[in-house]
Amino acid sequence: MAKDGLRIIVIGGGAAGISAASTAKSVAPDASVTLFTEFEDVAYSPCGIPFVHGREIPDFRSLFLQTPEHYAEIGIDLRLQTKVTGINIERRTVSVGSQEFGWDRLIIATGFEYDKPDIPGIDLEGLYYVKNIRRAMEFDKVLDQIKRVVVVSATPLGIEMAGNLAHRGLETYLVDEGPWLMSKVADPDIMEPVHKSLEEMGVKIHLGTKVLAFKGENGRVKAVSTTEGEIDCELVVVATHKVPNNRIAREAGIKIGATGGIVVDDHMRTSVKDVYAAGDCIEVIHGVTEIPIQGLSGSHAYSQGKVAGANAAGGDRSYDPVFVPWGMVGGKVMIGGVSLGETLHKALGIPHFVAVAEGISRARYYPGVSKIRVKLIADPDTLRVTGAQLVGGEGIKERADFLAFAIKRGATLEDFAWMENVYSPPIGALMEPIALAAQAGLSKLGKLK
Amino acid sequence: MAKDGLRIIVIGGGAAGISAASTAKSVAPDASVTLFTEFEDVAYSPCGIPFVHGREIPDFRSLFLQTPEHYAEIGIDLRLQTKVTGINIERRTVSVGSQEFGWDRLIIATGFEYDKPDIPGIDLEGLYYVKNIRRAMEFDKVLDQIKRVVVVSATPLGIEMAGNLAHRGLETYLVDEGPWLMSKVADPDIMEPVHKSLEEMGVKIHLGTKVLAFKGENGRVKAVSTTEGEIDCELVVVATHKVPNNRIAREAGIKIGATGGIVVDDHMRTSVKDVYAAGDCIEVIHGVTEIPIQGLSGSHAYSQGKVAGANAAGGDRSYDPVFVPWGMVGGKVMIGGVSLGETLHKALGIPHFVAVAEGISRARYYPGVSKIRVKLIADPDTLRVTGAQLVGGEGIKERADFLAFAIKRGATLEDFAWMENVYSPPIGALMEPIALAAQAGLSKLGKLK
Repeated sequence: MAKDGLRIIVIGGGAAGISAASTAKSVAPDASVTLFTEFEDVAYSPCGIPFVHGREIPDFRSLFLQTPEHYAEIGIDLRLQTKVTGINIERRTVSVGSQEFGWDRLIIATGFEYDKPDIPGIDLEGLYYVKNIRRAMEFDKVLDQIKRVVVVSATPLGIEMAGNLAHRGLETYLVDEGPWLMSKVADPDIMEPVHKSLEEMGVKIHLGTKVLAFKGENGRVKAVSTTEGEIDCELVVVATHKVPNNRIAREAGIKIGATGGIVVDDHMRTSVKDVYAAGDCIEVIHGVTEIPIQGLSGSHAYSQGKVAGANAAGGDRSYDPVFVPWGMVGGKVMIGGVSLGETLHKALGIPHFVAVAEGISRARYYPGVSKIRVKLIADPDTLRVTGAQLVGGEGIKERADFLAFAIKRGATLEDFAWMENVYSPPIGALMEPIALAAQAGLSKLGKLK
Repeated sequence: MAKDGLRIIVIGGGAAGISAASTAKSVAPDASVTLFTEFEDVAYSPCGIPFVHGREIPDFRSLFLQTPEHYAEIGIDLRLQTKVTGINIERRTVSVGSQEFGWDRLIIATGFEYDKPDIPGIDLEGLYYVKNIRRAMEFDKVLDQIKRVVVVSATPLGIEMAGNLAHRGLETYLVDEGPWLMSKVADPDIMEPVHKSLEEMGVKIHLGTKVLAFKGENGRVKAVSTTEGEIDCELVVVATHKVPNNRIAREAGIKIGATGGIVVDDHMRTSVKDVYAAGDCIEVIHGVTEIPIQGLSGSHAYSQGKVAGANAAGGDRSYDPVFVPWGMVGGKVMIGGVSLGETLHKALGIPHFVAVAEGISRARYYPGVSKIRVKLIADPDTLRVTGAQLVGGEGIKERADFLAFAIKRGATLEDFAWMENVYSPPIGALMEPIALAAQAGLSKLGKLK
């Protein structure tokens, strides 16, 4: 390590940790930057794992973005398979077993853990958590030898895994307590086409169904016991809610928020001087509700890592409250949204009004045209849009990005109703579906003059 | 006609005229609304014509949106094949030959004409203008009997026609005076992939080439004489610049602007009381340069028609200056933009700075991923984005819509650099290409802290 430079330590080699380390090194080239990860690899895309299992992507190797050598070349001291066991704030060190490493600035990017259901059989063999690429490679080989799999929880990951396993030809069951798929994120009308698509792909969906226990034989799972009966299986994918991995931060006395995420300010500073945090282990302020949330995307983790890394290295970047554009493919259907849907507006008691319309992705007569349903959730008085949900067609990701940007800047139904749009038969319809939804909303409110 | 109701006359049955008539009738159901068109049809999509010629769309019938009976049903008096020959402002009438029809409110939606080159042979048979669907049906039959066609001018329409005719298997030549394709709209780096794609499809492109004359035999075109030699052909598609069809408005003394378009205010009111205009026959204010422009899309015409129709019927809608998102497929490549590109910024002497990056449309490893080049043109002092150009990938139309909305509201490179984006391997990359371009721009300016 450089004797005279700033000593920066990063804990965690996911999107947040890697971007923090790279940004710190580029902002302060003289600093020594050391990154510890308990795993064998860094700089791969965990979000791609379900699609390799589904054979949409040919192999795990293609998920790697960079080699460990790359980080050595740019001057980052990468310590693989090195688990940080504790943080000492007073001595400004981290412990790796009995060894200690000193820091001037520390960045915590310890990511998430799955919320493990507290039920019998949770420690059986054959329960799989999508996270680490080495485990995924092993799991993928097991998939060749089995026929029946149960996916627990219809979270976004659960839905991706169920679709991909069915696509691979496995008899796939999807079990969830909620009344519809992804009921904590999306509205029922948005999820209905996904439900139908998954069923068409052969997924057997059990909603309103609670998992009571995993049953085993010789230490290996052989069935899932639920409130609606038992499902025999050879494997279980546990795709439950993700919770912040806050253990070492909490033990060091760093402030943890109500969500379980590490509390940070807009510079990704924790409650302790010179200690930063970023990614799935933190909570951030939601732009509409102004309450802290956790569990965002890899893209958010990456951006937060850049802010933490730059500031730890002496920069001055800030991170705004989030509006959370999201999007994915469920079954064969694109869905997405921004911030909260209708269901969550209702649940949180936020005054709201729903503007909805169905438009099309290209000219009505052009091959490949498909329907797009757009719901804009708005404040009934100010007409400010506070959330959106979309399903169908093409361009869902681009529309979600657009809506998040516009909602952040206070756009109203009127702004969207009269927006200009590209019209060209192969790529865009005469009327943009977002504008149609806004116009329908204004019309319903009697505000179309 | 209703005796006591408002008498509204609409001249023109294109997108602007049809939307004006429909909106007027819905805003003032008691009004009598009469629409005159010199053509046999209304309510079809002329923008779809090139794709029927190219056999991308199976037949012309699919381009029709509504039957004439539909308009009778909603109470519009539709007069097909009825050419309005003059407007009398004092008597508040329009003439159809010797007949006169009275109006309380008049809406002019006479559309565009092609700028006919003033060269020998311009009146030969075999020169085709893409406009009227009946002519297109006849022309399409001729295409079955010929082998060689010349498209004059690499305008957006010229490029669509050249690509489609080549796709149909014709020997296709594209001749243009400019130094690159669509040189009045797009930048050379944006058009390069289109050029390559058209060539791969077999189009023979002649740039920097001026058409001197059309040569004929027995009154039919048989060759195009250019500054670079003669090209034998059996047909010519004249896809020159579009100019406002302003004749009857001009003759009636209604104010015409420098572009040839009818001058309107933000309520689509012309210089004469109770006379409105909308669509390709008008000029509107451009949001960035604040100068009037003409020749926008069918989507603009449709929106302007709504404003004119609503206001003629007693409403109070306004139309904002335009920022002109555009997009199309050239060859097999998607291109698009907002407002002006780099070339036009330069030509108009607008201070500007170019931020450019190449991103991807999905995760790097996901099937179907493709490159997207984004150029943001910004004011070097305020960093406000004033234009954009895009090429490649997917989602060009959605990005152009987004950028137009954001540019209209004053978004800066910094706003785009730190935007949130959807990350999901099948539909969106870790980093949004728009954000990458903005970050590259800030970095170039030394404004990345």
